[in-house]
Amino acid sequence: MIIGIDVGGANTKAATSDGSFLTSIHAPLWRNKAILYDVLYEIEKEIDETEIASAGAVMTGEICGCFETKGEGVSYIKKAVCRVFGDVKFLDNQCIFRNSSDVDRDLLSFASTNWLASARFIADEYKDVIFVDIGSTTTDVIPITNGRIKAGRSDLERLKSGELIYSGVSRTSVSCLLDRIYMKGEECKTSSEHFATTADVYLIIGRIKKEDIGCESLNRYCYPFTGEEEKNRISAMRRLARVLCSDLEEIGEEGVVHIAEQVEEAQVNELITSLERISEKYGLKNVVSVGIGDFIAEESSQALNLNFLSLSSVYGKRLSAVFPAYAVAKLLDD
Amino acid sequence: MIIGIDVGGANTKAATSDGSFLTSIHAPLWRNKAILYDVLYEIEKEIDETEIASAGAVMTGEICGCFETKGEGVSYIKKAVCRVFGDVKFLDNQCIFRNSSDVDRDLLSFASTNWLASARFIADEYKDVIFVDIGSTTTDVIPITNGRIKAGRSDLERLKSGELIYSGVSRTSVSCLLDRIYMKGEECKTSSEHFATTADVYLIIGRIKKEDIGCESLNRYCYPFTGEEEKNRISAMRRLARVLCSDLEEIGEEGVVHIAEQVEEAQVNELITSLERISEKYGLKNVVSVGIGDFIAEESSQALNLNFLSLSSVYGKRLSAVFPAYAVAKLLDD
Repeated sequence: MIIGIDVGGANTKAATSDGSFLTSIHAPLWRNKAILYDVLYEIEKEIDETEIASAGAVMTGEICGCFETKGEGVSYIKKAVCRVFGDVKFLDNQCIFRNSSDVDRDLLSFASTNWLASARFIADEYKDVIFVDIGSTTTDVIPITNGRIKAGRSDLERLKSGELIYSGVSRTSVSCLLDRIYMKGEECKTSSEHFATTADVYLIIGRIKKEDIGCESLNRYCYPFTGEEEKNRISAMRRLARVLCSDLEEIGEEGVVHIAEQVEEAQVNELITSLERISEKYGLKNVVSVGIGDFIAEESSQALNLNFLSLSSVYGKRLSAVFPAYAVAKLLDD
Repeated sequence: MIIGIDVGGANTKAATSDGSFLTSIHAPLWRNKAILYDVLYEIEKEIDETEIASAGAVMTGEICGCFETKGEGVSYIKKAVCRVFGDVKFLDNQCIFRNSSDVDRDLLSFASTNWLASARFIADEYKDVIFVDIGSTTTDVIPITNGRIKAGRSDLERLKSGELIYSGVSRTSVSCLLDRIYMKGEECKTSSEHFATTADVYLIIGRIKKEDIGCESLNRYCYPFTGEEEKNRISAMRRLARVLCSDLEEIGEEGVVHIAEQVEEAQVNELITSLERISEKYGLKNVVSVGIGDFIAEESSQALNLNFLSLSSVYGKRLSAVFPAYAVAKLLDD
């Protein structure tokens, strides 16, 4: 059995190449980086370790503020993964698997590699395509032409080119997406407090449900999905109303839904801007998408008349939600 | 001795009417609302309780997400303040001091009152003026004409009119202020992660120093001022670089300072927009300012050729930083 591990800042994910095992565990490293050991041991316990023929890893968690530099983060994550899984292969930014001793020689080559695993795996299947992964926290928009990945290799380059949109459909603070909201024709500035997240937004308008995500250990802070459904929705509405410093009773359900729709529109428009730029630059007309936010990718693609395929229809929603981990396992299996 | 208490969501402040005692204690209610009792008992211990002739209170902390509604928050805060200080007067949104039993009858009339205490106190002194208070978290921009406060009485109204700008010079996430940053002529989208705050920004460009604030119990999370100065500045630069998903080494000190300047410019411009609107609407030409961010108010006023007076030159920087608490005490003293 071959396992792929994707260590993010907020969630650590794992999947096997046969798709028989997959998991996503909430483990916010910036609060306590040592939690990573617990999470990895938990994953190792769930799989019979003797069955693991090989293990591969990618990461984005090195960017967390608990690490002074991304290099320090890569080193910490590498050590933790190797401690638990032994001889692990790490994907570098040239899409080559390296031994752990190679990691120490050029730490930054192993930073922010999770999207590369997915893109490499996709590029073998879909030669000319824009690959989109909309997760809890970020959105990757990766041009692939003739089976080659054309995106920049650092987050900074990708932020400039629109290949990385640092917002997602769960953890992103609504205040970062909208600095003003329209209410009954009036413009209203938003609070900058971390009152509500995109998880609240998409719970309220029914775009994400607990069963759509299929991740374990859902965390109350990130996902308002842990209690009774109707009560959760009311809590989410209360949080979203707070973005205008209001009680739910002040602006009503209709008002809150109107805010949620404006957040979705903002995310769709931001992706449209990136897709348009990349589609024109590379002459690409097809989009394939993974991640729990693929409904955003679908709306944006349709607006631009791009052909759209959600890979959750191919691999299922649960695998789609942990796609980089699965891709690592598949690449290692080749 | 008369004491004024201002219970915010992040900080609780107190001051006496003679200015002999003042304090600001970091107490984030959304993490643990019960901390308010500890903080209030600490304040009560610092002053000899037998010397307190009367106590008045205002608040904004009721908006914290730990309270389902703002009414629940007002009720909780009222109970805590009365438990510790006994017979406390609460300022309502008509600027009248009420007994604690009156609070229960109309909870929302006591929500978000701290700016009103300051404005009422200022209105007696400066009859026609725009009063600006730029604190750690928010900015109040209050029109006063002929000694009357013209601002809306709910946060929602004030967000619409520009009388409340929900950002400040310490706790505000940089990602909420700038969705793109210019680096060497190139536009770069920002991360939506809570990587850096305005405290980092103003520490880096030297606009705020620890001694300027004069608050007790500075908290590492909110204020990067707790260690050795040069080391703090480097940590702040590391955090600010992360807003572009970068290490400090990737964009350099010059790049980070350039980001900080863009944040300051954004805050100055946002205040210019509000000041211009309010100045035109009410024909006001004078600005008086309190709060640790009065340098922003000065820049914005100058850009509009408005007369500017920082009240820290009248009351001192320490009182200016806890002005609503001081104003409550002074109003109660009359």
